[in-house]
Amino acid sequence: MNQEASLAALKERIAAVNDVLNATSLLTWDSRTMMPAGGAETRGNQIATLTRVARDLLLAPETEKALEAAERAVESLPENEAERRLVSQTRHAVEHHRRVPASLIQERASLRTVAQAAWIEGRSKSDFSIFSPHLKKTVELARAYADCIGWTEHPYDAMVSIYEPGETAASLKGLFATLRAGLLPILAAARSRPAPRSDFLFRDFSEEGQRAFGLTVAEKLGYDFKRGRLDTTVHPFEVSFTRNDVRITTRYTRNYLPASIFGTAHETGHALYEQGVDPAYTRTTLATDLVGLYAVGGTSFGAHESQSRLWENHVVRSPMFWQLHFPELQKQFPTELGDVSAEEFYRAVTRVEPGFIRVEADELTYDFHIMLRVDIECALMDGSLAVADLPSAWNAAIKRDLDLDVPNDSRGVLQDVHWSTGYIGSFPTYTVGNVMAAQMMETLRQDRALDAAIEAGDYTGLAEALRTKIWCHGRRFNRDELLVRETGRGLDPAPYLAYLSAKYAA
Amino acid sequence: MNQEASLAALKERIAAVNDVLNATSLLTWDSRTMMPAGGAETRGNQIATLTRVARDLLLAPETEKALEAAERAVESLPENEAERRLVSQTRHAVEHHRRVPASLIQERASLRTVAQAAWIEGRSKSDFSIFSPHLKKTVELARAYADCIGWTEHPYDAMVSIYEPGETAASLKGLFATLRAGLLPILAAARSRPAPRSDFLFRDFSEEGQRAFGLTVAEKLGYDFKRGRLDTTVHPFEVSFTRNDVRITTRYTRNYLPASIFGTAHETGHALYEQGVDPAYTRTTLATDLVGLYAVGGTSFGAHESQSRLWENHVVRSPMFWQLHFPELQKQFPTELGDVSAEEFYRAVTRVEPGFIRVEADELTYDFHIMLRVDIECALMDGSLAVADLPSAWNAAIKRDLDLDVPNDSRGVLQDVHWSTGYIGSFPTYTVGNVMAAQMMETLRQDRALDAAIEAGDYTGLAEALRTKIWCHGRRFNRDELLVRETGRGLDPAPYLAYLSAKYAA
Repeated sequence: MNQEASLAALKERIAAVNDVLNATSLLTWDSRTMMPAGGAETRGNQIATLTRVARDLLLAPETEKALEAAERAVESLPENEAERRLVSQTRHAVEHHRRVPASLIQERASLRTVAQAAWIEGRSKSDFSIFSPHLKKTVELARAYADCIGWTEHPYDAMVSIYEPGETAASLKGLFATLRAGLLPILAAARSRPAPRSDFLFRDFSEEGQRAFGLTVAEKLGYDFKRGRLDTTVHPFEVSFTRNDVRITTRYTRNYLPASIFGTAHETGHALYEQGVDPAYTRTTLATDLVGLYAVGGTSFGAHESQSRLWENHVVRSPMFWQLHFPELQKQFPTELGDVSAEEFYRAVTRVEPGFIRVEADELTYDFHIMLRVDIECALMDGSLAVADLPSAWNAAIKRDLDLDVPNDSRGVLQDVHWSTGYIGSFPTYTVGNVMAAQMMETLRQDRALDAAIEAGDYTGLAEALRTKIWCHGRRFNRDELLVRETGRGLDPAPYLAYLSAKYAA
Repeated sequence: MNQEASLAALKERIAAVNDVLNATSLLTWDSRTMMPAGGAETRGNQIATLTRVARDLLLAPETEKALEAAERAVESLPENEAERRLVSQTRHAVEHHRRVPASLIQERASLRTVAQAAWIEGRSKSDFSIFSPHLKKTVELARAYADCIGWTEHPYDAMVSIYEPGETAASLKGLFATLRAGLLPILAAARSRPAPRSDFLFRDFSEEGQRAFGLTVAEKLGYDFKRGRLDTTVHPFEVSFTRNDVRITTRYTRNYLPASIFGTAHETGHALYEQGVDPAYTRTTLATDLVGLYAVGGTSFGAHESQSRLWENHVVRSPMFWQLHFPELQKQFPTELGDVSAEEFYRAVTRVEPGFIRVEADELTYDFHIMLRVDIECALMDGSLAVADLPSAWNAAIKRDLDLDVPNDSRGVLQDVHWSTGYIGSFPTYTVGNVMAAQMMETLRQDRALDAAIEAGDYTGLAEALRTKIWCHGRRFNRDELLVRETGRGLDPAPYLAYLSAKYAA
């Protein structure tokens, strides 16, 4: 086989893996938007089988043979860096999966089913003891998983590497220390000011009206509806089945308007990333997370979150956005918002109000929710915290950082689904996203023309800059490579703290 | 391994095949109901890959090993007939697929893409010559496919066996001769009567009103919405992802009310079959078409069609149904149907009016459209008809049977999508369905209590009888076995002709 044929053979194998993973994503999207209740029983089997099929295709002797031939081929193609990346990333994923025995995957999958049921029951009864034995087992299996993958300094490093390659327990500790020190005074200053008026956010807003405005927000940000659609769900998410079909979801809370607006903006940010991946990478390793077995074009969970946060917070949660677009919202809800000004609306949706629930948190307190979870995950993984002591550790952290007393475990340690599904190590990516978004924006705004356009509420230049600097690269470069290319350095919390200080301490 | 473990190992393999095929069906459902236009480009790849994966799983050495062990196991389980069926059907499917080389499957798949595009262009321009070279190639590949599968009397037999096992070119010839002889005088009698009033069917009926009434029709027939949903599409269909999730689709023609009502009833009939399959057969060979690689619980395309036709024509297209339910329809459309009686409505939706288009045909002329297609398919497969002569053969048959002059090929030989997708041999199943529906109904109505209930518009007993006699068996028995069990004989056109005569010659 010549070099091109060798590469083509590997790409054909990976294209099939990508197809299977996209089908898996569709099974998930459907289960969260369209599926009738009865379908749940067999849908779980279907998702599990397809994930296994994808892994088996990746570990098949035919893939190894094609991969070895491709490795030889790219040796003599030093100029084609994208192809070299594609091959080395495939090798990395194959080795990753080889290290994890199928029996452990099966054990984690079986546990997930019972753990989720126990979490749902425990949360509804606010009784941690119902969930804790399953969490204990989840941590044990996560530890076994980490040992399979391998780690040097901390077992948590192996878990984080799945979601945010490059971060470790130690790097996160350093990042969090800086963030905590920087955030606390901004938060204190914000809390010392009187709360703005926000009563009007809680009026009765029709679902149709919210949806209509959400659609215009997505369109304003540049979302391509010919390659996407907006649906309703319980826990909003974005999902793609190649760049040609990238869907967003939201939910409409009748008595709280911001949830759907900023939620839709958030998911649109995710979607822009996927819609902007280089078409040449479609169905290749450069648009497939072969380690996480997830058909995604973004390079890491944190990089993905950076784009959702950027559009949600830096663009839509900005004074200019509402100066320009509040009249449209008012037109949609003339009775409900007739007595409100654009300025009042902006102040209301940027009010700071520490609370117990992560997904309801404002920009200033959000990262405290994350840091507390990551601290706990690290301590669970290295054994320095017992599962039994988790509620008290949780409540103490909320008291220390936000000065709040957690009333019960439903509004505390039991609030998130993540641990019940076996996810350990994904929480850091939310804060990484916040930090990366601000770092990119700081650099982009050094372009005076672009900065002026953003200030004037014209985001086409911003989208184009993000497309060429981040989105189009898919998974070719990792997160820090992207940051170094564009900002000259790896992840740096300073721009984030500067952004928050300017927005909330003023 | 003991016997139970041997069977369990085979079932696990087949469950995975079923999962993959259900995922394939979801990819298709989504592409026809939800998918944004841009998604089409990569969706085709996803469907092709999953179909290949299902075939590969079926032909894998692990399946063969499990199958051989299961074959030994059932030898000593003579009492468990369902398990023996499951094993022998799996063997039959494996041997079927072994006979067809992957290269031929690939060739047919590639042809389908270009042939469909050519058909769309040819139909829009009403120019058969655009499509005919691709149809020629399609017939050649179908012939090669038939030769792989094997046949004795006629190459068409091999193709029909995929959709309607048991039927052959010869058996269909006999069936059609009887039908033609029986139908022509009924048709002549119907045409000799003055046409009833039907102007009101063509008024402007809102989509929301049609949908609301369609939902009540589906519910009246016993469709379980907890395991299903109704969506809008261009070419309506029913599809299931196990019995737990069986979806129907329809389309709303604003200026022709019957399309959505009877279309919804038709798809509901299909759905009732799938929803009624024995839960114990879920994810087994007894609820999977392993030959056609399609996750379906009904035993043949014709048996499936019998259930849709039964509910559409014998139940919903009956005088009692409208006597009972026309007031509800009138309530939905008080302006549009205010001047119409239940009797007038029934007469309008059972009027006989020969036309060019199969999917618009009434009960008396529908089978002529089918017989003409099957005659042509047989002649193409055995070479007695050249593709070039197809339009004239088509038009001559329409003239002979319906006394109509086909104005152009769009309304003639180019009207159906089937041949452009490579389907040859599926048309007979529509007429088989009509015949089987009437045969089942004739026998069921010999139960006086059930007959009285049906006459009074109460269909719960009918549904329960069909569930226990047909639906629950899934694919365990073939179509003729089901008919023999319930009616004492194989497919028999006499009850169908008697039903049509009573309904249309009176």
